[in-house]
Amino acid sequence: MTEQRIKTPSRECLIDITEQVKTIIAKAVINDGIAVVYCPHTTAGITINEGADPSVKSDIVRFLRDMIPRTYPFDHGEGNSDAHIKASIIGSSANLIVQNGGIILGTWQSIYFCEFDGPRSRKFLVKIIG
Amino acid sequence: MTEQRIKTPSRECLIDITEQVKTIIAKAVINDGIAVVYCPHTTAGITINEGADPSVKSDIVRFLRDMIPRTYPFDHGEGNSDAHIKASIIGSSANLIVQNGGIILGTWQSIYFCEFDGPRSRKFLVKIIG
Amino acid sequence: MTEQRIKTPSRECLIDITEQVKTIIAKAVINDGIAVVYCPHTTAGITINEGADPSVKSDIVRFLRDMIPRTYPFDHGEGNSDAHIKASIIGSSANLIVQNGGIILGTWQSIYFCEFDGPRSRKFLVKIIG
Repeated sequence: MTEQRIKTPSRECLIDITEQVKTIIAKAVINDGIAVVYCPHTTAGITINEGADPSVKSDIVRFLRDMIPRTYPFDHGEGNSDAHIKASIIGSSANLIVQNGGIILGTWQSIYFCEFDGPRSRKFLVKIIG
Repeated sequence: MTEQRIKTPSRECLIDITEQVKTIIAKAVINDGIAVVYCPHTTAGITINEGADPSVKSDIVRFLRDMIPRTYPFDHGEGNSDAHIKASIIGSSANLIVQNGGIILGTWQSIYFCEFDGPRSRKFLVKIIG
Repeated sequence: MTEQRIKTPSRECLIDITEQVKTIIAKAVINDGIAVVYCPHTTAGITINEGADPSVKSDIVRFLRDMIPRTYPFDHGEGNSDAHIKASIIGSSANLIVQNGGIILGTWQSIYFCEFDGPRSRKFLVKIIG
């Protein structure tokens, strides 16, 4: 298992971690199997989406902010229930197929760490099995 | 594969199954790999979220009930289309990283069975691969 | 890894791929483990939900269309940000447990390829590890 630290710059943002994940996979001894990219936080998640046009990730962030408003009458006293809900909707991990020592991604796919309650120091984990 | 039965007490609730999953992993012969916690039902799911403050899980349940109202003009005659939609949004399984015979969870993470059409007798499955 | 091509008939639809996935698993040499069904597109996803009554899948499609309207003021110029958001909410892959050469599905569960920006020629990938 490999642990990678990242810093998120704002309350809600998608950080492209594709290159970091590719580097981890390239160094691994297993070159055929499944990789799990795992987020150990409860107000953040992992998703796979378009990496070409940056407006896709800003649209995702902005739409989720409107769909799950922080101003909803939540009970949880920390003011971040919206972030917990987004984390469960996006999911805490992503599966990747590993083949010939590299990950199989579609033409437009990038891997994102989704911050919903930043800015913070965060980490993600990568585990490969063959 | 291990099958675990649970009873859900109300129509919509999150049941903390972390200890049950930990016990299953502790008994397994594989102590390094990936575990999949799988829900074989179509009106329930599995998520990972905060386990410390119970208001987080009640906020998730209540917000999803408002976001996906049972009163929407659905076609499906059983009156539980809201539950099917929540199941697909939350997801039918969660990945866990297994290391040294235990699961890697973040400080605040717990594993939840998400009931959206209870109360019912349910089950979840755990499969570990190394 | 097996790649399977499909054609989607409309902009938003759920295509039942259960039989295709079962056939792929039946031909595989691994008969005990995990299978990942992976979608390499950024405006489509994979989910597991009810396969008995077709109104469940049409309710999912219709409700998601209302919840994430294409008419929202998105920045992304291709007019399909709604589809990208749906893809991240549904998820790009599903885990299946493989036992005795077959997949373990609940009584009512089917596997769906979720098209959110069709009609198109698409594909999904299946990777099995033991």
